[in-house]
Amino acid sequence: MEGIAIMTSGGDAAGMNPAVKSAVDYARKKGLTPFLIRNGLRGMIDGDIAQAKREDVSGILHRGGTVLRSSRSKRFFEYEHRKTAYENLQKHGINKLIVIGGDGSFAALNQFYADFGVPFAGIPATIDNDIPGTDYCLGVDTALNMIRDSIDSIRDTATSFSRAFVIETMGRHCGYLAMVSALSSGAEICIVPELEYDLDAMGERLRKDVKDGRGYILAIVAEGTNMAEYLTRWIKVNLNMDARLTVLGHVQRGGSPTVRDRIMAYKFAVSAVDSLIAGNTNKIMIYKDGTMGSVDIETVNSTKVELNKDILQLCEHLSK
Amino acid sequence: MEGIAIMTSGGDAAGMNPAVKSAVDYARKKGLTPFLIRNGLRGMIDGDIAQAKREDVSGILHRGGTVLRSSRSKRFFEYEHRKTAYENLQKHGINKLIVIGGDGSFAALNQFYADFGVPFAGIPATIDNDIPGTDYCLGVDTALNMIRDSIDSIRDTATSFSRAFVIETMGRHCGYLAMVSALSSGAEICIVPELEYDLDAMGERLRKDVKDGRGYILAIVAEGTNMAEYLTRWIKVNLNMDARLTVLGHVQRGGSPTVRDRIMAYKFAVSAVDSLIAGNTNKIMIYKDGTMGSVDIETVNSTKVELNKDILQLCEHLSK
Amino acid sequence: MEGIAIMTSGGDAAGMNPAVKSAVDYARKKGLTPFLIRNGLRGMIDGDIAQAKREDVSGILHRGGTVLRSSRSKRFFEYEHRKTAYENLQKHGINKLIVIGGDGSFAALNQFYADFGVPFAGIPATIDNDIPGTDYCLGVDTALNMIRDSIDSIRDTATSFSRAFVIETMGRHCGYLAMVSALSSGAEICIVPELEYDLDAMGERLRKDVKDGRGYILAIVAEGTNMAEYLTRWIKVNLNMDARLTVLGHVQRGGSPTVRDRIMAYKFAVSAVDSLIAGNTNKIMIYKDGTMGSVDIETVNSTKVELNKDILQLCEHLSK
Amino acid sequence: MEGIAIMTSGGDAAGMNPAVKSAVDYARKKGLTPFLIRNGLRGMIDGDIAQAKREDVSGILHRGGTVLRSSRSKRFFEYEHRKTAYENLQKHGINKLIVIGGDGSFAALNQFYADFGVPFAGIPATIDNDIPGTDYCLGVDTALNMIRDSIDSIRDTATSFSRAFVIETMGRHCGYLAMVSALSSGAEICIVPELEYDLDAMGERLRKDVKDGRGYILAIVAEGTNMAEYLTRWIKVNLNMDARLTVLGHVQRGGSPTVRDRIMAYKFAVSAVDSLIAGNTNKIMIYKDGTMGSVDIETVNSTKVELNKDILQLCEHLSK
Repeated sequence: MEGIAIMTSGGDAAGMNPAVKSAVDYARKKGLTPFLIRNGLRGMIDGDIAQAKREDVSGILHRGGTVLRSSRSKRFFEYEHRKTAYENLQKHGINKLIVIGGDGSFAALNQFYADFGVPFAGIPATIDNDIPGTDYCLGVDTALNMIRDSIDSIRDTATSFSRAFVIETMGRHCGYLAMVSALSSGAEICIVPELEYDLDAMGERLRKDVKDGRGYILAIVAEGTNMAEYLTRWIKVNLNMDARLTVLGHVQRGGSPTVRDRIMAYKFAVSAVDSLIAGNTNKIMIYKDGTMGSVDIETVNSTKVELNKDILQLCEHLSK
Repeated sequence: MEGIAIMTSGGDAAGMNPAVKSAVDYARKKGLTPFLIRNGLRGMIDGDIAQAKREDVSGILHRGGTVLRSSRSKRFFEYEHRKTAYENLQKHGINKLIVIGGDGSFAALNQFYADFGVPFAGIPATIDNDIPGTDYCLGVDTALNMIRDSIDSIRDTATSFSRAFVIETMGRHCGYLAMVSALSSGAEICIVPELEYDLDAMGERLRKDVKDGRGYILAIVAEGTNMAEYLTRWIKVNLNMDARLTVLGHVQRGGSPTVRDRIMAYKFAVSAVDSLIAGNTNKIMIYKDGTMGSVDIETVNSTKVELNKDILQLCEHLSK
Repeated sequence: MEGIAIMTSGGDAAGMNPAVKSAVDYARKKGLTPFLIRNGLRGMIDGDIAQAKREDVSGILHRGGTVLRSSRSKRFFEYEHRKTAYENLQKHGINKLIVIGGDGSFAALNQFYADFGVPFAGIPATIDNDIPGTDYCLGVDTALNMIRDSIDSIRDTATSFSRAFVIETMGRHCGYLAMVSALSSGAEICIVPELEYDLDAMGERLRKDVKDGRGYILAIVAEGTNMAEYLTRWIKVNLNMDARLTVLGHVQRGGSPTVRDRIMAYKFAVSAVDSLIAGNTNKIMIYKDGTMGSVDIETVNSTKVELNKDILQLCEHLSK
Repeated sequence: MEGIAIMTSGGDAAGMNPAVKSAVDYARKKGLTPFLIRNGLRGMIDGDIAQAKREDVSGILHRGGTVLRSSRSKRFFEYEHRKTAYENLQKHGINKLIVIGGDGSFAALNQFYADFGVPFAGIPATIDNDIPGTDYCLGVDTALNMIRDSIDSIRDTATSFSRAFVIETMGRHCGYLAMVSALSSGAEICIVPELEYDLDAMGERLRKDVKDGRGYILAIVAEGTNMAEYLTRWIKVNLNMDARLTVLGHVQRGGSPTVRDRIMAYKFAVSAVDSLIAGNTNKIMIYKDGTMGSVDIETVNSTKVELNKDILQLCEHLSK
């Protein structure tokens, strides 16, 4: 009997629950004994580890967040605590790990492997879609559709007045959510870290547009630019239009996983289990050009996030 | 042929569109000729008035906001502009008005009646539910369910960590939305203008609660209290728990009208048309103790908003 | 220590979960010890009874269906099995019961009281809204909004073609869901058990309407009339229009409880606990003319369901 | 000035509206004059053609169905009527066509090109995802998420009882919707045209599963198999479990386009306009292995729909 443990780590993302369920079901089908680690890396140290029971993963497929809960653990940076974690795994006969999370979590498991040789497979999950090497991270599609719902609701009010709405999406270093949201909601303005903006050109374009009959304006701004409040005032002054700011906040994180996130969760989980059974370790599952695959964690660490050029190009005209 | 004009005025609220459609359809059925005034009081001055056509009100029942658009008009305070508005109505043979909006709009029409004797009926519509005399204002149920969706989404993240979420709802002077949302989402804290809060007692209660196993905390705060940011910091310090603030903003205003708002819109519209046909004027339609009725606008103006004592009492323990 | 047990029984309805949670929380607050009976009357016989723990009712407020599960039990008609149920309650010191369900379940508990003198309070919950004496039954508002979502989706297709859509809602003996849905979706046809229909008049009305530019037709039919398929064919032949039938089925039953259902659940639960504490028994909680109250179960049994005359009147013109 | 006309044809699909808007906007940006043909091929014959105005495509991005409406036209099979259509295009100076629809519509435009040499580009749009050569057709993602919502709602009831739910999805010749829905909802049974089923094996598997504690069963059946009613009865008899059938029907077709459908609409539209500007004709836009491209219509016609082997393999165990 070989034990395989599944955990979620870092910021939560829709799709984590279906990934957990799929990993448990598929691991069992392949003759492994699935375990669940609760509370992420902290739980690994504290021994929140138990064999997965049917009821643990029943009825979780359609729920947002992560039923395994997550955490950020400073203690895991210390060898001593990692050793405790290792001993906890040994007690249960666990010699394979699947971690669903972001690159910080992958790096932690990489160090853990260097210390104790426990093989792991990583499943990328973060709504920012900013893990190098993969076109898709779990949670992105659900986050985009949650943002869609919010913008569509704001649009109801926007069309009732002659008004501008500035909407700030999540994304500290990455404008992916903002750009895709701008395109899919037909916004007139999009401000992201990856694109230079030109307010003068923008002012000219939009004043002309309003003159030609445009009734309202939607502007999507990525959190990381810190431009949301400034832009709101700028619109009032320069376009002579009432403007309101909405910071979407944590509403973007939740929601029932979309079909795409559930299916991707399924595929990522199957890949991760298969990768471990095949004897691989330190691999991150990726989805690239429409196909599942995996890369070494070193590749992830040494690669810069490649921006989707398609999306960038389609958005360019919205920042000037 | 008698003309009846319908307009929306003030802040938008879900339910305005079904009220417009119902008023048009029912007025026509009763032998009146329905007109639509676009852009609220401003449109009345500017002559944005036209006979209602089938396509104007077709397919609007399920849409948020108001297809007639709204505005706030300073000019309407001046007699000269009101006179222009009156002349616009006369040109079309309009001698009855239905205004869907809040008490500011009702007061404007009241003055207009004093000036020119054009009878009107008011339909209360505001998500704040703070118009005196009526238990219900159009838009409230939809706003509450939009807030519900946001809180349920945030809960997904909240349950994934040991974290507090402070959520600010709309409501400048009135905590209705916040209180009902707190009750219907099972929040642990509710801060509204109508209830004194006691942070010391609250701290004691919640520290005990967390000790007993509570994993996360939801706090709902009404905009008018200006307490959202303070409470977020207070939780971090006093409950030693990570806390995040989400200001729901304009997402609350939009969304497809709920069944309740559509049905109430229907009933309010029928009442308003019937009231005008019966020769009444300056009446505000109300829903009181489960029954439709109407009151003089003077009654509305001279009455203080009566807080729903049931709701207040149910919420009391959440602010201390 | 006094035990109070809560169960759900009969067909499931949104609002059952918040009612369970509210009853448990409020009972505890009032010094009672809350128990949960799982699987309805069957579970009472089989002894599926346990003291309510925090985690039993945590995170259930926003979930459809009933986490206590439900059942229909033939055995409960037999004295012997009821005796077993009684003994199960005694073991736990339970001397008060709250049953959330329909009139069949209330009648069963009434018999149980006659046998063993265990006081109970009933909370009306059924999407049909057909329990005599109360204006509102838990689950109705959520069901109506689920139907709204389905009809709004079908409308997208309907407006894309010149087509009629016949939509069958639940409701074996009662057309409430169909009528309110017809009104709130602006349907052109509504067929319910409570209203006579006149296809000749309807044909004339709609042929004229189509000639005047109507692009599509929505027809809402209550299940109990068995008219859905016939009407679909009738439209094809008599209006010369492509017509499609959709039977909404169990989609109507689920979904996260609306705010209205959550608040009503809260109020019903508080009333039920208070009623039992006050020493009452065999009372059914009701909501009448905007106020909570209660009536004897005999009154419920001997009363005919009173149709909402408002709604009936507003719908009349849609069945002819 | 060069005219380019856009039309929707065949069954409606979410994503048609954003595709129309994107095509109009992008064509204009590229110096072409966009026209809209309403009512599909029938409108082309009847001359329902007009230059696209701002308000025609404003506020349509988030709406299901097609605001251009669609139709099936027998007249288009006759040369004489196609000639009329051609003359209509000539009147407006239209020498490029974009058709958003399925392979029947593409074939019609192909014949039209053979007759009169009007170049066209096709954008695949059908919820069945069964157009050869492309991995994705507009509307699929939205349909899948609408089905998800329905199944998640039915699950609420399913978990409240010990019951099986059989759910029939659309798909006459293709089980794509059913398979992806089965996977993403964690169904226990999936019956599609592409996979042989083995009821004996299935019975054995599920009886064991129920014995091990499974509380309810979800079965997804593709319309084209005609198996939904049979399977419902089979479950009752062979698994000794109450079973209910829900035919999802036209609810699947509507709904606001998901972000994926809006973005794909954008990319398909840009590709189609670019393809026509580059002088190509009779090309169908495709999305293959994560990249946009195009193929000759002959290739589409001569190719068999290739089933997604991944999905088929993942579903195999659900039909036996």
